Amino acid sequence: MQKKIALIFLLSALWCGATAQIQHVEPLNWWVGMKNKNLQLLVHGNNIGETTPVINYPGISIKKIHKADSKNYLFIDVVVEKNTKPGTFPIRFQKAGKTLYSYDYSVLPRLSESAERKGFNASDVIYLITPDRFVNGDYTNDVVPAMKETQINRKFEGARHGGDIRGIINSLDYISSMGFTAIWPTPLLENDMPSYSYHGYAITNHYKVDPRFGTLEDYKELSLKARQKGIKLIFDEVLNHTGLGYWWTNDLPFKNWINYPNAYQATNHRRTVNQDKYASEFDKNLMKNGWFDKMMPDMNGQNPFMANYLIQNSIWWIETLQLGGIRQDTYGYSDKTFLKNWSCALMHEYPNFSIVGEEWSINPLITSYWQKGKQNADGYDGCLTSVMDFPLQAALVEALKEKDDANFGKGLPALYEALANDFVYANPFQILTMGDNHDMDRLYTQLNNDAELTKMALTFLLTTRGVPQLFYGTEVLMENTGHHKNDGLIRSDFPGGWKEDTVSAFSGKGLSPQQLDMQLYLKKLLNWRKNNTIIATGKTLHFAPSGGVYVYFRYTNEAKVMVVLNKSKQAQTLDLARYSEILKEGSVVKNVVTDEVKTLGNTLSVAGKSAVVFEVK
Amino acid sequence: MQKKIALIFLLSALWCGATAQIQHVEPLNWWVGMKNKNLQLLVHGNNIGETTPVINYPGISIKKIHKADSKNYLFIDVVVEKNTKPGTFPIRFQKAGKTLYSYDYSVLPRLSESAERKGFNASDVIYLITPDRFVNGDYTNDVVPAMKETQINRKFEGARHGGDIRGIINSLDYISSMGFTAIWPTPLLENDMPSYSYHGYAITNHYKVDPRFGTLEDYKELSLKARQKGIKLIFDEVLNHTGLGYWWTNDLPFKNWINYPNAYQATNHRRTVNQDKYASEFDKNLMKNGWFDKMMPDMNGQNPFMANYLIQNSIWWIETLQLGGIRQDTYGYSDKTFLKNWSCALMHEYPNFSIVGEEWSINPLITSYWQKGKQNADGYDGCLTSVMDFPLQAALVEALKEKDDANFGKGLPALYEALANDFVYANPFQILTMGDNHDMDRLYTQLNNDAELTKMALTFLLTTRGVPQLFYGTEVLMENTGHHKNDGLIRSDFPGGWKEDTVSAFSGKGLSPQQLDMQLYLKKLLNWRKNNTIIATGKTLHFAPSGGVYVYFRYTNEAKVMVVLNKSKQAQTLDLARYSEILKEGSVVKNVVTDEVKTLGNTLSVAGKSAVVFEVK
Repeated sequence: MQKKIALIFLLSALWCGATAQIQHVEPLNWWVGMKNKNLQLLVHGNNIGETTPVINYPGISIKKIHKADSKNYLFIDVVVEKNTKPGTFPIRFQKAGKTLYSYDYSVLPRLSESAERKGFNASDVIYLITPDRFVNGDYTNDVVPAMKETQINRKFEGARHGGDIRGIINSLDYISSMGFTAIWPTPLLENDMPSYSYHGYAITNHYKVDPRFGTLEDYKELSLKARQKGIKLIFDEVLNHTGLGYWWTNDLPFKNWINYPNAYQATNHRRTVNQDKYASEFDKNLMKNGWFDKMMPDMNGQNPFMANYLIQNSIWWIETLQLGGIRQDTYGYSDKTFLKNWSCALMHEYPNFSIVGEEWSINPLITSYWQKGKQNADGYDGCLTSVMDFPLQAALVEALKEKDDANFGKGLPALYEALANDFVYANPFQILTMGDNHDMDRLYTQLNNDAELTKMALTFLLTTRGVPQLFYGTEVLMENTGHHKNDGLIRSDFPGGWKEDTVSAFSGKGLSPQQLDMQLYLKKLLNWRKNNTIIATGKTLHFAPSGGVYVYFRYTNEAKVMVVLNKSKQAQTLDLARYSEILKEGSVVKNVVTDEVKTLGNTLSVAGKSAVVFEVK
Repeated sequence: MQKKIALIFLLSALWCGATAQIQHVEPLNWWVGMKNKNLQLLVHGNNIGETTPVINYPGISIKKIHKADSKNYLFIDVVVEKNTKPGTFPIRFQKAGKTLYSYDYSVLPRLSESAERKGFNASDVIYLITPDRFVNGDYTNDVVPAMKETQINRKFEGARHGGDIRGIINSLDYISSMGFTAIWPTPLLENDMPSYSYHGYAITNHYKVDPRFGTLEDYKELSLKARQKGIKLIFDEVLNHTGLGYWWTNDLPFKNWINYPNAYQATNHRRTVNQDKYASEFDKNLMKNGWFDKMMPDMNGQNPFMANYLIQNSIWWIETLQLGGIRQDTYGYSDKTFLKNWSCALMHEYPNFSIVGEEWSINPLITSYWQKGKQNADGYDGCLTSVMDFPLQAALVEALKEKDDANFGKGLPALYEALANDFVYANPFQILTMGDNHDMDRLYTQLNNDAELTKMALTFLLTTRGVPQLFYGTEVLMENTGHHKNDGLIRSDFPGGWKEDTVSAFSGKGLSPQQLDMQLYLKKLLNWRKNNTIIATGKTLHFAPSGGVYVYFRYTNEAKVMVVLNKSKQAQTLDLARYSEILKEGSVVKNVVTDEVKTLGNTLSVAGKSAVVFEVK
């Protein structure tokens, strides 16, 4: 009898060592009423793979259970029927008929308009924010001792500076008053990295807001308050890689959960392999499987469980934060079939949503390839609604810097020709346009600190087809002069974002006249654009640049806007007969920035180095 | 009675003054058995417009008679039935029942294989010749006193130098032995211009060979003898403009026969308007209607009679000279609907023919637009089988000159990326590739007089998809060093083309060792290519350049060719494992230039700055 008891005791002890401890169940929750009724749960816990999960809840059923390579994982295919009552239910993990562990999982009700949510579009202008460098709204979360990078140091461009979600919330009035209608904060999820964690692109937990930026509740508050002010929230996502030190690093579910798990191999960055019919398998594999950076393990979207994990994570954030768009990092570095499945799964759930992918190529053949509706020669039909217009960005800056030469397509003629390429896009209206972003020199710096050229560039972006994105601080001529491609300085602190700041873009205190002028100019132009459908929906008619002047019109059946960019230093007099196909003689025009109204004669004089936007009556 | 006689005399005298004198009937003749049975004759003669033409010949009928704006023209729509007996018949021009003039017109039999003639294709390599500067085969036609430019002067780069059709005929053995399979002489039709008539692009009669180049019989002899040696003859044509002083200049059939007939207006050269959906009518009209040059009136293809005139002229030359292709000048400068009608009319008659258009853009979106089979966004579907690969030309030269930088797509990576764009083309095999032509600096000069780089460039062109075109003299490193864009020097005299020459590329006399080496290298490579279908038909597989080395393969089910371009100055050792998807370990390879055979190990060493072409066994 004693022996028997001892044996039971021994077995229990052994059993306890093996008892499942649930460490992760992801997605953290789900919703009732999704078009796709299937949900795949990742469950992570010691030896969880040896158990059998059981759910007993009306409308919820387990379809299939998948073991992983590691016994500490289970993947459970769950079906959530349409009429399931939202609620919480236990998932019981059983072995030999016994429940070893129980985990409470919730399916929530969806907002009624969730499926029909509208993503960003050409009526929007996006304010791109590097949260760590924008506004420090909560000084209590600057340092989180449990995390690997514990210090803040505003003097070092690679360190954290303390900006956070609360800072963005506090700035919504400013952002809204400026005339922006969408914000794109760079990633706010946990980046528990020993250094350079501020940028956010080395995510170490797909379901956790970085506590130095705030909490999930803060993020939800940001979304809600933004929405209340008519500002869409765009979520910056990274499908291709994580940060080193992700919680799964030392115990991957599958051997191929990440690429090159054992020996670092860099990507070849050969972005053309996705389109190139001559590309070798060697280069294609290296492109999609190699790591973007030594600190950034490459997630393998070809593993179907990883694919589901990422698709569901995207949907989870859309529902949780009521997003107005997703910006997808390093598009083209993942497997293209996965990218198609990911983008189409999202667009299937949210047919009016918007996703912009970062395909950093100045070749419109490459960028246009990814856009939804593009008739590709190889039949590829992804669902990305938007790509970034790097080709136009490069052309715009070169156009303003270079001397005009129509024969060789230099200067403004190059800009005209770049826009002419629009026939390659399935939908040019939906392309994201920009003068710069967080990965390139500040626009003002690219334009040799020339405020007038910067104004022309911004005027172009705000009056051309597409969804313009402006980088925070552009309105006060932030720069990185003399520090080419120095990311940390490109992402400098926004003046007035810290209580100790003596200069403030919010109050205008300490801004130079030139900065104030630019801020006011943009405010005027942005607010005009916001209340005007011509730019968002109008057709384009442009005239080949001549004499340093580029003239184009945006027009609908009801209204017309005329834009004149005069790059030459001298005032230019335009013979208006040239534009007679769209501009009637004697038209009354209103300058949308100065509000000046006048009647046009046969000619129009435009000041040197200036941009003019007229509403044509 | 006397009064009556006097009256008759008077009327007769008046009538004689008005009597039709037939000055031109064009096309000069036609053929029986064309797919298109319709023929439109242009008849030009004093007051011919006041007469009624009558034809009485079985199978030939007049369908419609068109008067022109000038009474000195008639356009007669004739139907030539399929079974018409070839022969000559009078066209009687009648007034008031009386025949005032009779003109003998002929319809000839066609060669049985005429309709099925094959144009140039990727199995060909084209030798581009500026006839005035190639070989002077007939000294008796150097000066033709009746013409406006009467002198020859080999010392002046803008003057005529005396080269001619006989010179090309005399050189066919050389051209053939070098391994070329097609020749493209720049235009040989009459250019009766006061100066710069040598280049041939200012045609003053679409039906007349310039007598300083020879006769129509000479041209036919060239075509026949070339064909007998397996060399296709490509005709260089100019649809957009003529030379000033065309016979019709002072008496145009229609007011809109040419554009801007009264006041010179230059084209704006804005080639993107043909594709650009935002382009203004102003720019589109200026592009197609403006003159290419002050000396070159712009023909109006929108006038249906001009359109027919040009289409029939093209067909006339195809039939008369048994052409193997047409090269069309300044494509995109004519009305695009006309260009479609022109190219499709030719391809309808000759479904296996080839036409290459000169669209001088380095943007593949623009060049690819014109190719037959391209699915354009705007539905445009022209029938040009081939375009010139200016994008690849620019990329090739830059690739060899610039330092490699994969991140920014400079150097060899730019060439790799340029080739990757091929998915934009309906048929990349049919594109004409070149390192230079008669309008740009000599390839050797573009490559800073570096013979090794020139060899690499030519090796690339001769082993890549497409129809390579080499400019005469490339084989002996002809150059225009120090004279950027000097057309006259770019088109220098071919050494040995004049009896007084002390250096001869034909005999090798006086050539430098470097020139002889290049000539031999090309001869070897061209002749290998000629007897090898892999390059003409094989697929391409390429590997992203690395360490200054670009490796690609051409392959069919049966055979494989490996090409290695090592741009770096140092010898490079390639790890062949990288190519294992196409290259088996231990493959036996044969260097197609040196004939050296070896068995590959794990690595391959390639000399610095060299190109190697291996047949892989």
